[in-house]
Amino acid sequence: MTLMPYVELSDAFRRGRTTPLAVMEQVLERLDAIEPGLHAFVYLERAGALARAAESAARWRAGRPLSPIDGMAIGVKDIIETADMPTGQGSPAWAGTRTGRDAASVQALREAGAIILGKTTTTEFASTEPFHDTRNPHDPARTPGGSSSGSAAAVGAGILPAAIGSQVVGSTLRPASYCGCVGFKPSFGALNRGGSFDHLSQSCVGLLAASPEDAWCVAAAIARRVGGDPGHAALAGPETPPDIRRPARLGVLRTAGWARATPGAQAAFEAALDRLRARGAVVVQNGHAALREAEDALRDALPLTFRIFDWEWLWPLGAYERERPGSVSAPMRQWLERARTMSPADYGAALAEREAIRGRYAALRGSFDAVIALGATGAAPAGLGWTGDPAANVPASLLGIPAITLPLLEDEGLPLGLQLLGQAGDDAALISVARSIWQEWNA
Amino acid sequence: MTLMPYVELSDAFRRGRTTPLAVMEQVLERLDAIEPGLHAFVYLERAGALARAAESAARWRAGRPLSPIDGMAIGVKDIIETADMPTGQGSPAWAGTRTGRDAASVQALREAGAIILGKTTTTEFASTEPFHDTRNPHDPARTPGGSSSGSAAAVGAGILPAAIGSQVVGSTLRPASYCGCVGFKPSFGALNRGGSFDHLSQSCVGLLAASPEDAWCVAAAIARRVGGDPGHAALAGPETPPDIRRPARLGVLRTAGWARATPGAQAAFEAALDRLRARGAVVVQNGHAALREAEDALRDALPLTFRIFDWEWLWPLGAYERERPGSVSAPMRQWLERARTMSPADYGAALAEREAIRGRYAALRGSFDAVIALGATGAAPAGLGWTGDPAANVPASLLGIPAITLPLLEDEGLPLGLQLLGQAGDDAALISVARSIWQEWNA
Repeated sequence: MTLMPYVELSDAFRRGRTTPLAVMEQVLERLDAIEPGLHAFVYLERAGALARAAESAARWRAGRPLSPIDGMAIGVKDIIETADMPTGQGSPAWAGTRTGRDAASVQALREAGAIILGKTTTTEFASTEPFHDTRNPHDPARTPGGSSSGSAAAVGAGILPAAIGSQVVGSTLRPASYCGCVGFKPSFGALNRGGSFDHLSQSCVGLLAASPEDAWCVAAAIARRVGGDPGHAALAGPETPPDIRRPARLGVLRTAGWARATPGAQAAFEAALDRLRARGAVVVQNGHAALREAEDALRDALPLTFRIFDWEWLWPLGAYERERPGSVSAPMRQWLERARTMSPADYGAALAEREAIRGRYAALRGSFDAVIALGATGAAPAGLGWTGDPAANVPASLLGIPAITLPLLEDEGLPLGLQLLGQAGDDAALISVARSIWQEWNA
Repeated sequence: MTLMPYVELSDAFRRGRTTPLAVMEQVLERLDAIEPGLHAFVYLERAGALARAAESAARWRAGRPLSPIDGMAIGVKDIIETADMPTGQGSPAWAGTRTGRDAASVQALREAGAIILGKTTTTEFASTEPFHDTRNPHDPARTPGGSSSGSAAAVGAGILPAAIGSQVVGSTLRPASYCGCVGFKPSFGALNRGGSFDHLSQSCVGLLAASPEDAWCVAAAIARRVGGDPGHAALAGPETPPDIRRPARLGVLRTAGWARATPGAQAAFEAALDRLRARGAVVVQNGHAALREAEDALRDALPLTFRIFDWEWLWPLGAYERERPGSVSAPMRQWLERARTMSPADYGAALAEREAIRGRYAALRGSFDAVIALGATGAAPAGLGWTGDPAANVPASLLGIPAITLPLLEDEGLPLGLQLLGQAGDDAALISVARSIWQEWNA
């Protein structure tokens, strides 16, 4: 259902066989057809999109594109600031707020020639509560997942080739799995979060895209122009997709997300392992000591993450509740109450625990070309009131490592992702392996 | 010239000998008398200040103050968001901007019972260009220093017992030295910067105060309520001032700031060393190998810091210039141009260089009760167009360590600070030593 991957069109753009203008026309046509029933956007900025796509077409024809994503239509999660559009943070209290500036990622995308088509829905403050009724593009009675709900839905519906989101627990990988698109969560710190209402210590800019190549090129365009978070090395690698690398050795990671997966998801995953073995990969699981230790260490990844977040939400939730009592949803007010039972020392202890778990996972470095897991615990659940279980996605967030989910599996006849996890800083190597699996599956 | 330190009044408040209301009346009286010629504030929120001070007085009398700084009048640097006042960032392009929320530090101060009296002037984006004509309280023809210009001027003039600022090069310590007040720059990450336009990798909330005790209590009130930056341990220590500790052994650090200091400043520093020796401290300098290595490593602290910042200013300067060309001052546009000649790898190399220097300084841990240096290269320079040389202040910023400057010296008959530097995370120990020196000097 996703669009033709954008960066595969580069040659065609250069030769004039198609143009970013033709792609933009297709984007707008699908938008008009699908969005009324999808509700992926809170704000659209169509004015000028065709004119800017025509300018991009001219740059491609002249052999001078600004980047591999020059002319690409992109959606921006509504916690990320945009100078020309409001940023509502998915919160009724902040809807329509204009900050008057572009976030770092948006600045970089514009400098790279991309065209920001609109702001996509998110749950309240990119957390758990959905105030928008965004639908799953594969079944309107089901959630698209969250918190990057609209970004995943718009890409999964084939409206956009890519959108940016964020992830702090499972907010990019899970909706990508549910909506049937690629989701890429880079290493912590690898993409500059400046100007995103997104301050937690596991948070990062996430990519939703039609292909691993598109996801990489959007990320690389950002990193090259505005770097990573201050004090962190930026995503390293080429502006074009890193070379394909066939995985020789894959480690299987079964954490709480596996235990909570549906039978259909588990069966689909086992079949995928068989398929990878049949193509020559060595799949390592039971009995590998370091892998088992990593799995053990990750057992409480979700409660530990929420303990860390409770504290990190003291601000701004405390300020919001002080200034406008009742403006924060009841579930988030409970986080605030829990946080107020913690001390700075409790938080310090949680950080130390996280650091120890990271050490356990880092011990796997060099053992595998990638670690493999389910992209979600199953197909998107029914209903729009809950964005689903993040248990399969939290390990990459807690560990600060890169992870990508590819829409290659099915559960209940609906999309399900195959997740690959790498080591911190080795994002390009992970994409190389993902490209190989993607290519073989789609061959 | 500074006010009676606020936290010394706690007993008097409890016994009703004086009240936060009486102190607030004094604050407003001095404000009316001095501010018209000082220009330390961009915005004042006097409405309700007396009523809130009366409420604080009642809490003290009832033995239930919210914190040691309950009722304290505080100024907030104009890069730090306030729900009820605009945040102009010292930039003509952003003057009057309302963000509608309190920064983490402001939220914490209000929860601690402090009363935010107004927003204090800063240079453009807390960097180098002064667009306000704030005066030095000791000589109106001289700069108050920057970028926390108004915070230092208001405290140095004896209007406020404390104000918050920030420091990324020398923006708290230098103006404190020039204006004759205490300046405290905590360890990097120790105080939550959330909601401050202050994103650089050396930046932190800074305190300007009438005494080391006031500086500590303001910092501790913030740390206890909103913690440090996400992912960092918060400032550790009691809510009241840490115990006084007489230093037995002090190391002298002479970096580029020493070489550029005025003869008067150098003479004042040497006299201070004599005075410390006379009181029994062992003062270690020439010939100490690890100290000399740290000095050598810090030789290029200022150019390295600016190299790091050039890159870290790609956003938001790039976004501002794209959206509103000419809205950024010419000197800052040059930073942007320099940054565009850098790659993410260049930035990564600069970070690695900084990390190595930090290692050299950390090797001194355990050798001294504190390291001692000049608080600035001399008295405040004449004129309002330049905020002075940060060479004496950049080491603490580059190293991410705590530092405090005490207004105990003079140059040209004007205030000059004595700077004490600690080890990262050992903020409370540094304050203990500072209290001892402060007490002996003022005895």
